[in-house]
Order: sequence, then structure tokens, then C-alpha cells
Amino acid sequence: MVKAAVLGAGYMGSAITFPLTHRGIAVNLWGTWLDDDMLSSCRRGKHPRLQKPLPAGVRLLPSSELQEAVDGVQAVFIAVSSIGFIPVFSKLLGCGGIKEAEIYVLTKGIVEYQGKPERISRAAAAMFEKKFGQQPLWVSVGGPVKAMELAHGIPTLSIYGQNSKAVPDISRFRTPYYRIRSTYDGVGVELCSAFKNVYALLLGICDGLYGQQDRLYHNFSALLFSQAAAELKEILSCSGADPETVYTAAGIGDLYVTAQSGRNRRYGELVGRGMQPHKAYQKMMRDQEIAEGYPGLKLGLRYVKKLCIERRLPLLGSLYTIIVEAGNPEKILTRFASGL
Amino acid sequence: MVKAAVLGAGYMGSAITFPLTHRGIAVNLWGTWLDDDMLSSCRRGKHPRLQKPLPAGVRLLPSSELQEAVDGVQAVFIAVSSIGFIPVFSKLLGCGGIKEAEIYVLTKGIVEYQGKPERISRAAAAMFEKKFGQQPLWVSVGGPVKAMELAHGIPTLSIYGQNSKAVPDISRFRTPYYRIRSTYDGVGVELCSAFKNVYALLLGICDGLYGQQDRLYHNFSALLFSQAAAELKEILSCSGADPETVYTAAGIGDLYVTAQSGRNRRYGELVGRGMQPHKAYQKMMRDQEIAEGYPGLKLGLRYVKKLCIERRLPLLGSLYTIIVEAGNPEKILTRFASGL
Repeated sequence: MVKAAVLGAGYMGSAITFPLTHRGIAVNLWGTWLDDDMLSSCRRGKHPRLQKPLPAGVRLLPSSELQEAVDGVQAVFIAVSSIGFIPVFSKLLGCGGIKEAEIYVLTKGIVEYQGKPERISRAAAAMFEKKFGQQPLWVSVGGPVKAMELAHGIPTLSIYGQNSKAVPDISRFRTPYYRIRSTYDGVGVELCSAFKNVYALLLGICDGLYGQQDRLYHNFSALLFSQAAAELKEILSCSGADPETVYTAAGIGDLYVTAQSGRNRRYGELVGRGMQPHKAYQKMMRDQEIAEGYPGLKLGLRYVKKLCIERRLPLLGSLYTIIVEAGNPEKILTRFASGL
Repeated sequence: MVKAAVLGAGYMGSAITFPLTHRGIAVNLWGTWLDDDMLSSCRRGKHPRLQKPLPAGVRLLPSSELQEAVDGVQAVFIAVSSIGFIPVFSKLLGCGGIKEAEIYVLTKGIVEYQGKPERISRAAAAMFEKKFGQQPLWVSVGGPVKAMELAHGIPTLSIYGQNSKAVPDISRFRTPYYRIRSTYDGVGVELCSAFKNVYALLLGICDGLYGQQDRLYHNFSALLFSQAAAELKEILSCSGADPETVYTAAGIGDLYVTAQSGRNRRYGELVGRGMQPHKAYQKMMRDQEIAEGYPGLKLGLRYVKKLCIERRLPLLGSLYTIIVEAGNPEKILTRFASGL
């Protein structure tokens, strides 16, 4: 019997337990030190975010029991927030039996590693190599997957991007509603996952700006959508990834879904309606909703500056001016459009 | 002073008069034999579809005065429906002064020409060549442009695709809110314009199916969106167009906007909610709303069969089964997804 550990009991970690259990995989769901309330709620009945009970048989483990959670598992799914990734991965490396495990990473974003912005897989590979003298068996998981919908069995397509040549058998995780396609462009999948959250803020801002005035803004949001795809392509090209990955479900599919719904879009809407960017972030934090695109934008801009390509990404620059420098969204986006 | 004729006084023909007038171009707006009511309404005050008066100075000409409409113009914008294209273009070829005019085509779709499905530009080029012994100065106009929004000055990006090497000066039409990018891939722009209407039906069907159940269907619609883009790319490749055009505003941008709003999406929603496909089309016709994706699908499928690529377009095939063979949308789309 295949055994898997899922690290992080938030939206996505909890949602992935549904297809895994469906396929007869024994699942340990481990909560970080921030997930204690979530786990107690699950024990009493429903997962508080997904609004339904987790599948029968999922073992819940608190943050103190990481070793127990990963004991004897073949696969570890990491679904903590991007801020939590490095500390959790550090702890994971201290556990026995990790060296040969397959690592599937649902965490999105760029992380800060040794003072620099870095792709998650690259930071993790450096840590893993230092510890074990070899590369991890790593798969970046992307694609248009809203956790809530996956947990409710809505047909969903996920992209598994392998960085290494040893191919884990991902068909073990496929169900009739959870479809999986694989690619060798793990770096592309990872970068799309990270930056689509950032660009989705823009679609939210556009909706917030115009959505209350008869919803006459589709031309504008389509213009932003296509430009976002073009800039994502630039970021992938300059990172050594396959730029074509942007045009798969991992890129435009994920950008599409993130633009339609979710926390990053909602955050953008608040800003579009006139709320100060840092206040909108704090307001959502108080409602226990983290819009990862907000910190993601700051780290993302540092990442593209490291590649010296920020001038080729004018829309990202406009977004930075709106969010970090609190510029007027309408003026800045209109100026961007009229410069096309 | 530049003079232009716009043929077709529906949504798009009327909307394009705004940026043209804005740039000081003298505009004759010619209505087809179906547009008489529209023109009288404009004379009394508002354009009935756009819900605002046309720009001052636009000359309105009824269907009997095509020669007057195109007399001495440098540019002709054709914005009639795809069904009306061949008869209108025939009449146009009988007018004096057309041989050297620049022809900008906003009509979308595949047309029936000599009993076969054909790209509009190819059918028109054959007709033009037969008459004048040369190719027309032809530009296919595409991109994410909702007429209503263009008429209201919402920032809009349009793609002008040239088929010929003689480059008209398209910067004459650009305004701060009507941005234009040009490409030499006129065929790609045209095919994207035609087929995005067809694929947009699917996003509407998906919304109709699930939109009333807590809107839990974004994963599914993103899956359909990415597959639609992949199939569009296949259609362009096999038509000798540049497949990359799919990934510009002309392709994914236009698909995005068409999936969000408009007649094709609304038609799809009716079908998704359970209305018989031909009845939904007739209902919209009675409301004077033509969902071009419906006839477009039938002609589109004949077009791809002519290219012998229908087996590479499984989503288009599924759509055909739903719309033309009145298959159960949920069953068919779920089966499509579970086959990925």
C-alpha cells in the first residue's frame, strides 16, 4: 500500500487528501504550528476552510509529530505557505527516511533563501544536497487547481513538472476528477505558479476599478491578461525554463482561474476599489485570508531584477507602482495601456 | 483628410466610428438591408445597441447607397455578420474606386464560398482577383474588442493582421483608448477571431451547468480554456498561420473576453442550463441577438474536416456533439475531462 504525507492542513493540503484517499493511498495530514485550530476543527467534523469533513481514514498529526507523519511514506506533498516553506523543509530534512522519498510541492511562489529571492525548487535542492549529497526526487505541482473545487470533485487538471530524470509514477494519484499531465519543465511550472498569483492581482484591480460601473471593462482585462501571459513567457525564457509552458494549463490555465476567483483576485479588487494596498492586505489577514500575491510581488520583483529583466516587464512594474508605492491604480493602468 | 466607410451598422461597425471620428477621419456608416431600423434610431438619437448617440459628423447611409458610402474613401471597414459577408463584398466589388482601397475586416468567422467552408480573407481574395486581377489590400482586425466598451472609451487593444506586404498606415486609427498592434499573420488573426467564438460557447456551457451551484467550477472552466487554446494552436498550425498568434491578444486575449461576456457566452449558458441548442439559438434570434458561434461551429467543423484534423481537436468534437447532436452537456464534458 502506498503511504503519503501531506504537510500543511490549509486549503490545498487538505484538498489533495481527497484524490489520494480516493486512490487507496494511506494519508497522514500534518499541520504546521499555525494549523492547530484547523486540525481540532477537522477532528470535530468539518475542515473550516473546505466546509466539509476530510475523507475517512486521513490521519491528523500536529506540528510536533513531523517524524511520525513522514515515517515510511513514499511520497511527501508539501502544501505550506511560501513563507513557511524554508522552515518546514529544514525540519523535514531532519527526519529519517526522507532521502529517498518523492517530494511533490504545491507551495507556490518565490522564497527568500540566504538573503536572496530564489525559486523554491532551487533553494530546496541546495538544502537537500548539502544534507544528503544528492538531488531530491522533486516534482513541482501546478495548474488550475482551486482547493475547494478539488475537494468537491469538480473536474480538475493539474500539471506535475519533474525537475529530475527519475520519473515517479504519478498515475497513482490520478482519479476521474483529478487529471494529471506531466512535463519535464518543472522550472516552468514552478515559475508560472509563483507569478500567476502576482499577475492575478491586476485582474482583480481592474475588476475593482470598473466592476461596479456596469461591468464595462472586459476589453481592458483581456488586454491585461494577454500582457501578463507575454511577461510570464519572458520570465520563463530568462530562467532557462521552456517558454511554451506558459501556454499550457500550468500557465494560462492557472492565470485564468486565479483571475476569476480566489484570494489574490479579491485582494486586487479591494485595491481597485480604493483601499490602500497594505491596509487591504492587513484586512484580509484579519479574516485569516492570505493573499500570497502581495508578498509575492515584492519577492518576484527582486527575482526579476536579479535576472536584469525588469525593463522587459512593464506590466509587472506598473503593478509594483500600484501596490508597493501606492500609486493611483486607474492612472497607472490607463497609462500602461496607452503606451502599448 | 482621410475618409473611411464602415459597412454594417450593428455593434461593431457603429463602435469603430468612435475612434475613427476621434482621429479626425470623415466616416460614412452604411447599413445593410437589415440595419434600416438601427439607422432611423440613430437619426432620432441613440444607437439602439450601443445605447448612446454616434459621434457627431458620422454620415448615415442606407443600403441603397453603397456607392455613395465608399466614394472617395481610402479605407473600408467591413463589420457585417459573417452570413452577410459574401453578398456585401460582392456588391462592394461592383462599386467604383474599390480597387485601391484599404480593406479592414472586422467580420469574424468562416464563410461558405462555392459550397465549401473557407476563411473570409481567402474567399474575398478569390473574388477580388477575379474582378481586378490583383490581390486586395487586406487587413484582418482581431483582438479582445467588445463593441460596447470601445464605444465607451474603455482601454482596448486590437490586432491588425496584414495578409499583404503593402503596409497601410494603421497608426492613423490609434487613439489613447484604442490601441493597435500589427502583425503579418493575418491568417492567424482571422482564424483566432473565427474559432474563439466557437470555443467560447464551451465556457458559457460550463457556467450554465455549474454557475448556479455555488460557482464551484473554475478548475473545470480553466481546463476547458487551456484546451481551447491548444486546439486553436493546432488549427492555426495546420492552416499555414503562425501558431504563436494564439498566444497574443488576438488569441488568448480574445478568447478570454469572449468567455467572460457576450452573445456566444450567453448562448452557451442557455444550453448549459438545459435548453435545447437550436431552441436557445432561436430564442436569442427573437431577442435580436445572434450567437455567431452556433452557425460558426457547424462551418468550423466542416473547415477542420477539410484540413483532416478533426481527430486532433477532441474538445471541438465534444462541443459539436453537445450543440449539433444535442448530447447531454454534463456527461460529454465530464467524459472529455476524464479522458485527459
